[in-house]
Amino acid sequence: MTDTVHIGDVPFGPSHFTTIAGPCAVESREMALQTALAVQAAGARVLRAGVFKPRSSPRSFQGLGTRALDILHEVKATTGMPVVTELTDVRRLEEVADIADAVQVGARNMHNYALLTELGRTELPVLLKRGLSATVDELLLAAEYVLCEGNERVILCERGIRTFESAYRFTLDVAAVAVLHERTHLPVVVDPSHAAGRRALVLPLSLAAVAVGADGLLVEVHPAPHLALCDGDQALRTDEFAAYQRQVQRLGAFIRGCEAEVDGLVPETELESA
Amino acid sequence: MTDTVHIGDVPFGPSHFTTIAGPCAVESREMALQTALAVQAAGARVLRAGVFKPRSSPRSFQGLGTRALDILHEVKATTGMPVVTELTDVRRLEEVADIADAVQVGARNMHNYALLTELGRTELPVLLKRGLSATVDELLLAAEYVLCEGNERVILCERGIRTFESAYRFTLDVAAVAVLHERTHLPVVVDPSHAAGRRALVLPLSLAAVAVGADGLLVEVHPAPHLALCDGDQALRTDEFAAYQRQVQRLGAFIRGCEAEVDGLVPETELESA
Amino acid sequence: MTDTVHIGDVPFGPSHFTTIAGPCAVESREMALQTALAVQAAGARVLRAGVFKPRSSPRSFQGLGTRALDILHEVKATTGMPVVTELTDVRRLEEVADIADAVQVGARNMHNYALLTELGRTELPVLLKRGLSATVDELLLAAEYVLCEGNERVILCERGIRTFESAYRFTLDVAAVAVLHERTHLPVVVDPSHAAGRRALVLPLSLAAVAVGADGLLVEVHPAPHLALCDGDQALRTDEFAAYQRQVQRLGAFIRGCEAEVDGLVPETELESA
Amino acid sequence: MTDTVHIGDVPFGPSHFTTIAGPCAVESREMALQTALAVQAAGARVLRAGVFKPRSSPRSFQGLGTRALDILHEVKATTGMPVVTELTDVRRLEEVADIADAVQVGARNMHNYALLTELGRTELPVLLKRGLSATVDELLLAAEYVLCEGNERVILCERGIRTFESAYRFTLDVAAVAVLHERTHLPVVVDPSHAAGRRALVLPLSLAAVAVGADGLLVEVHPAPHLALCDGDQALRTDEFAAYQRQVQRLGAFIRGCEAEVDGLVPETELESA
Repeated sequence: MTDTVHIGDVPFGPSHFTTIAGPCAVESREMALQTALAVQAAGARVLRAGVFKPRSSPRSFQGLGTRALDILHEVKATTGMPVVTELTDVRRLEEVADIADAVQVGARNMHNYALLTELGRTELPVLLKRGLSATVDELLLAAEYVLCEGNERVILCERGIRTFESAYRFTLDVAAVAVLHERTHLPVVVDPSHAAGRRALVLPLSLAAVAVGADGLLVEVHPAPHLALCDGDQALRTDEFAAYQRQVQRLGAFIRGCEAEVDGLVPETELESA
Repeated sequence: MTDTVHIGDVPFGPSHFTTIAGPCAVESREMALQTALAVQAAGARVLRAGVFKPRSSPRSFQGLGTRALDILHEVKATTGMPVVTELTDVRRLEEVADIADAVQVGARNMHNYALLTELGRTELPVLLKRGLSATVDELLLAAEYVLCEGNERVILCERGIRTFESAYRFTLDVAAVAVLHERTHLPVVVDPSHAAGRRALVLPLSLAAVAVGADGLLVEVHPAPHLALCDGDQALRTDEFAAYQRQVQRLGAFIRGCEAEVDGLVPETELESA
Repeated sequence: MTDTVHIGDVPFGPSHFTTIAGPCAVESREMALQTALAVQAAGARVLRAGVFKPRSSPRSFQGLGTRALDILHEVKATTGMPVVTELTDVRRLEEVADIADAVQVGARNMHNYALLTELGRTELPVLLKRGLSATVDELLLAAEYVLCEGNERVILCERGIRTFESAYRFTLDVAAVAVLHERTHLPVVVDPSHAAGRRALVLPLSLAAVAVGADGLLVEVHPAPHLALCDGDQALRTDEFAAYQRQVQRLGAFIRGCEAEVDGLVPETELESA
Repeated sequence: MTDTVHIGDVPFGPSHFTTIAGPCAVESREMALQTALAVQAAGARVLRAGVFKPRSSPRSFQGLGTRALDILHEVKATTGMPVVTELTDVRRLEEVADIADAVQVGARNMHNYALLTELGRTELPVLLKRGLSATVDELLLAAEYVLCEGNERVILCERGIRTFESAYRFTLDVAAVAVLHERTHLPVVVDPSHAAGRRALVLPLSLAAVAVGADGLLVEVHPAPHLALCDGDQALRTDEFAAYQRQVQRLGAFIRGCEAEVDGLVPETELESA
């Protein structure tokens, strides 16, 4: 049975289906606030927003850093939404912890054990993304680095694995969500945006994630994706997010209703005796 | 817009969600009939049943062959269900075509162009499975081998791709279903059984497949999976199939209802202008 | 210990290092003869030449078919070189067997068990290529389909596997060559051309294959690669083949000399006791 | 043309072939010294030795840490060999830099841009390993994080990528070595030990690496691998290392001799005009 982990006062676990939404990166005070208000109005309950962006090239936009933290402080004061942001450098933990309600460890840092260990010594919820080619077992072992220091507030995130297929960015591994629910009590959310790599695939991948039993979604939204400083192709537009959110929430409610019923219809004991 | 392809009188396409179910292989007259009656009673509309089984090892069970065709003839007469079975040897096309309402080309034969070309010269529906490491583009090109001979009755099947992950058998690629719907008018079904590799994952993968927009499912069912001559670990039991079928059909109806609505809510023209 | 398998009178096995070379496909009488004479002059001992070409798209050049068989008949008469060519359709086995000294089963047909079984009933040497995502074990099991029918003249071929990397066509799996030598007595050759996908990588990959212990190479050569009807990018030019052949043969001799010595220096018994 | 980068006074580049050898981890003063003396006697010129070990599980041996640094200080004083060791936590850079002649960034930290940036601000040679599923381009971009800070002393290391094959630990990507030499002036070494995962494959993979043009090898050696605290299966024994080293060095000399000749035999201008 999956435990419930809270980010701020927002629960992630078996009796809720929760959307985390927001821009890939904070680009300015205006766009951060505009996006936050739009996703909040549509029903997202946690804001995601990048401050320090790990990028393949040192010449790509690396996030606004400290300035973005100040902006997020303001956005939180205005909206009251809890905020999750990525930590990429263990030396910046305190600075990020001052503002963030949860800390994201990105796919590139799933094996950064120094970072995980320090987060294990805090009480901050940790949103731990699966590495590009990490097995389910390795993801669970990475979570152990946080858990064994005493911090049990870990939420796992499936975000697509690297395969040979190039028709999208990463292969969303829905089976991993089902396997994780078998092997751990930690909540599991899905990031459909990085797997999709382009807007048109975000909704279908999100619906698949909901159906397979994810406890929430982490989705990128931008007021003007064609102007975004990073990953604009995969961001939903703020003005289409409400329709998206309605779809995934309705399916979330439907699936959770059915699950109770299925549990009743196919008694485990009977299956075991097969 | 996806076309509708019929197997017998059973439609696969945008306005239906159809389950094909049955045993991996015909093992005897009794088990074939028992399974067919059970899946039919639960609402499956097409029977799948292996006659010639391509196996990694020449020492594994290879199917009953011609004897299984005779059994399928009887089962069809009794149940009235159309039957889909795999063809692995182009020289047996006539023999199989006498009984089968649709011919499956398995993942191992997706690149068997001689087979595809001959099937293109028939009027038989072809259920074409994606190869273990075939790209979406290569699957579409394989379909072209059938289509360009004049046979337009092709149904594509996503069945999982080979990756590094070993927590299940193959990685079900739900994004491929969405991409295929963008690129072709052919219906797309999903085989959750081979991707799962074990019974417990078949339902969650099926729900993900339905949610992402698959037009149907191809699922393995066996009266006594622990005694099965092939792939027993991944077969649903006949007595749990009804509950399974109810779940996937209810979700199929829900998703198809929502799709119409989404089309209304997010006008493509507005998205294009972004 | 690896057995020796002959193609015509040319041995493949532990005491020889043999190059098979020739065009991807027979395109005309002139180019086939010109290429054969060039590779023969440079020391290649077996001619490869495609007659039936399996192509991803039905609209790509599919080989000259029967006409190419006639051309190969002539080329053999002129050069005296044994010829290996690919069989893609089991119904053409007799026709191909009339001309070919060995039959290639391509990567796309490694799982075509009908084809393998029929070849097992002949006495023709079979050059069996590893599938794009076949494991070493699956390749060995595919070989069993030939062996268990009574034909022990099988040569295995590593030709690159499909991975996420796109800096070349396929990932040449040199470790597979070493593992195959541990697990089977069959000779193992390497096709560097399909792994490379472009000319500049063919020599370095060939040298790696020789060093890791391959018993031979299967390499594409064309008199005018920029005009080739298939896979021109990866073909060596006839006028650079002599330098290539000298390099790989010299390394082959060097490595085979060293192997004897290594066997002496690191006694297995001592290693076992570690 | 590849530049020469020195670790201590030992050159890595086109006119040398250099072996870095030593234990996966420093386990005690005695074993570290014994291994160093053995590999030095056999001709290895740089010592590798783990101090901080990144492990999938927090319950596995994590290295002796600071105590191992003291041991390495002693071993360096005794042998005069330069030492390369892995840095996993940016906060320990100074401590490691006091002892190490070069800093290894492991596959798990290839995307740890904070670490790379700090190393870019030192003058320490950086041995940068390719991530498990990093493309060649991503490896080059990771190197840019060091280079663009002003530190040009980067040596790249191919160590195997993650694929579906389970007959060994990782798939050694020899083509990547050839591609890297096309795209960068940085030296490229190969770690055959992690790719192999077991002792018997280390020599064949090393020979393949030498043949494809690697500028050096990074190989694990242990006096009693069956007692090793990490990765014992893939470590060569100290008493077999001399034979290993002789083989790879002889091949290194042979290949480098041939390369000059090939450059002469196949003029690039002629190839271009094809």
